[in-house]
Amino acid sequence: MKNVAIIGSTGSIGTAALEVCAAHPDKFRVVGLAAGKNVKKIAYQVRLFRPRLVCLASETAAASLAACINKRKTEVVWSSTGLEQVATMPEADIILSSISGSAGLLPTLAAIKAGKDVALANKEALVMAGELLTREAARRQKRIIPVDSEHSAIAQILDGRGIRDVRSIILTASGGPFLQHSRARLARVTPRQALRHPRWKMGTKVTIDSATLMNKGLEVIEARWLFGIPPENIHVVIHPQSIIHSMVEYIDGSVLAHLSQPDMKGPIAYALSGPQRLSCILKPLDITRIARLTFLEPDKKKFPCLELAYRALAAGGLMPAVMNAANEIAVQQFLHKQISFTAIARLVEQVMAAFRHNGRVTLEAVLQADTWARAAAENVLKKMIL
Amino acid sequence: MKNVAIIGSTGSIGTAALEVCAAHPDKFRVVGLAAGKNVKKIAYQVRLFRPRLVCLASETAAASLAACINKRKTEVVWSSTGLEQVATMPEADIILSSISGSAGLLPTLAAIKAGKDVALANKEALVMAGELLTREAARRQKRIIPVDSEHSAIAQILDGRGIRDVRSIILTASGGPFLQHSRARLARVTPRQALRHPRWKMGTKVTIDSATLMNKGLEVIEARWLFGIPPENIHVVIHPQSIIHSMVEYIDGSVLAHLSQPDMKGPIAYALSGPQRLSCILKPLDITRIARLTFLEPDKKKFPCLELAYRALAAGGLMPAVMNAANEIAVQQFLHKQISFTAIARLVEQVMAAFRHNGRVTLEAVLQADTWARAAAENVLKKMIL
Repeated sequence: MKNVAIIGSTGSIGTAALEVCAAHPDKFRVVGLAAGKNVKKIAYQVRLFRPRLVCLASETAAASLAACINKRKTEVVWSSTGLEQVATMPEADIILSSISGSAGLLPTLAAIKAGKDVALANKEALVMAGELLTREAARRQKRIIPVDSEHSAIAQILDGRGIRDVRSIILTASGGPFLQHSRARLARVTPRQALRHPRWKMGTKVTIDSATLMNKGLEVIEARWLFGIPPENIHVVIHPQSIIHSMVEYIDGSVLAHLSQPDMKGPIAYALSGPQRLSCILKPLDITRIARLTFLEPDKKKFPCLELAYRALAAGGLMPAVMNAANEIAVQQFLHKQISFTAIARLVEQVMAAFRHNGRVTLEAVLQADTWARAAAENVLKKMIL
Repeated sequence: MKNVAIIGSTGSIGTAALEVCAAHPDKFRVVGLAAGKNVKKIAYQVRLFRPRLVCLASETAAASLAACINKRKTEVVWSSTGLEQVATMPEADIILSSISGSAGLLPTLAAIKAGKDVALANKEALVMAGELLTREAARRQKRIIPVDSEHSAIAQILDGRGIRDVRSIILTASGGPFLQHSRARLARVTPRQALRHPRWKMGTKVTIDSATLMNKGLEVIEARWLFGIPPENIHVVIHPQSIIHSMVEYIDGSVLAHLSQPDMKGPIAYALSGPQRLSCILKPLDITRIARLTFLEPDKKKFPCLELAYRALAAGGLMPAVMNAANEIAVQQFLHKQISFTAIARLVEQVMAAFRHNGRVTLEAVLQADTWARAAAENVLKKMIL
């Protein structure tokens, strides 16, 4: 029996994780939940799973929740202090960190420092502070277990054996909804079009990142920290069917691939219970019905965000945090129809070019770089015609 | 340093194995070789590798070889007695058994009984006497390591973990040269056409077996013994590009696949040195150049041999040995233009239908069933219009 706390329980990953826990009550007990403002949904989750601790974003939301649940069983807390309480609760064996964006960094770090295994769906935390998080986890012999389908695929292939005999890893990318668009057409796509992902149903931030390929760039950085593989040995291949979730190439020329129906319940279940597998998590894969898997090189000119991520990784230090923050602003602005789709990469590139204070990865420095990049992005937005 | 003896050293597998050994002189010492009558080729191999012991099929061939090598370094022996000497030589750590057909059974069994790990390229031995061979190997805690690309793929995926959490295995098949032929056209194909395999360069017997899909049938039986998986959990999928060499499906719905260039040096190297991998055995796989992998169900009506193998496995006992012997006769007759391509399956089916003495798998019983089936096949050939 594993005690699980879920940070981001009302999001798509959190919801799927609770489905996995509900299907295997003999394996998992949900002891803590944290969410934002969706009181109705979290109230339902609390009634179903009876966690000991629940956190909401604001005191108001917490009060609304407290009014409609059994307070003797479940304590309700709020704000970043409350969030840290859930991330570090003594009875939790594993924390699923699935808030979107840079907000995931602090609770993830708190969980690791409290000696928890972390199932990490929040890629931004590793992008911003991968060096810090992996160092802190290694010091406590705790694991950061990937929930991204690509990194879970690699973890499932490696199965705890590390990267001995590994020559490279190959992250697959669906290519997003605009794979076939010309550059001119790309400049005119709307948020609505960008939010229609062909394969995966995900949160808005990651869906836009998938359309720009920044998502794959973030995953390259994530992979570097999760598996300790140098960036030149991390490759990206477009695979529109999203059936092969990633591949590992060995020194002899063999390649192992992980395939499944595209459904996040697979990586979530493996993160929570691996290396043991749970039965019937995914619909069986009938490869003859799929019939055809295709692969192509990513178009770096049409999707410059991928290259920006390799550049940030090469610069090292705080540059990935800067890139990540600039990207968060850019995606927001695009969603609010303030900038075009192709301006996302240009904004990120300009903020990265303006960054002069690269240095060691400490929590303070990362948060400063993040703040600097957000301000810089706003400045670029004001001054420039994107 | 591993001491290797190779049975069938002048065949395609033996030759490739010696290339692997030559490229890694720090890992392998070739201590024994056995071949048929190709004196010129084996003389070359002896000069290159200086094995302690060499066996040829006949005394005449052995004498010709002895005349042109350094006899102080290498002893030359012959016939089945000599073959057994190579299979059991005390200094060998691993025996590569790669003679084609039922002739592989006795030296393979001798090697296992002598406490050797066996790298097995000869699938007929496992088909005829899988129960016996795996029992004898298990008793001595020795391994039968697959050299077939499909079974090597599965062994590489499992990597010593056994079949815990495995739901099924999926053997891929290129489909052979006649994948698109109509049944009428199949009846008229010539040995020459059947020997032109689209993906693999192999010996004649296995090439014809690939064209009838009997090869895949034999592999299903092989897989049953190598991995201890029940036949209903062994599936076959046609994959004409021969890039995915096989797959393992887990209980959660995940599938792991092994991909590489189709080149037997991969499975051979892994059989000799696995789980450690040797560098640069295969040409790197550029999946974006391959671009497209396709999959379809095997056509059981056009290629009945596959179904016959499942039937033999269901009957169990000596039936696989009977099927195998009948198939060897049928392939010979087809190569000698005595029967049509489609008559191969009919002949095998009729011999299987006539077998009335199924029983326990002992070496004597297997050899008797083999002899019976060959005679029965000759009888069927005489009496019937195939």
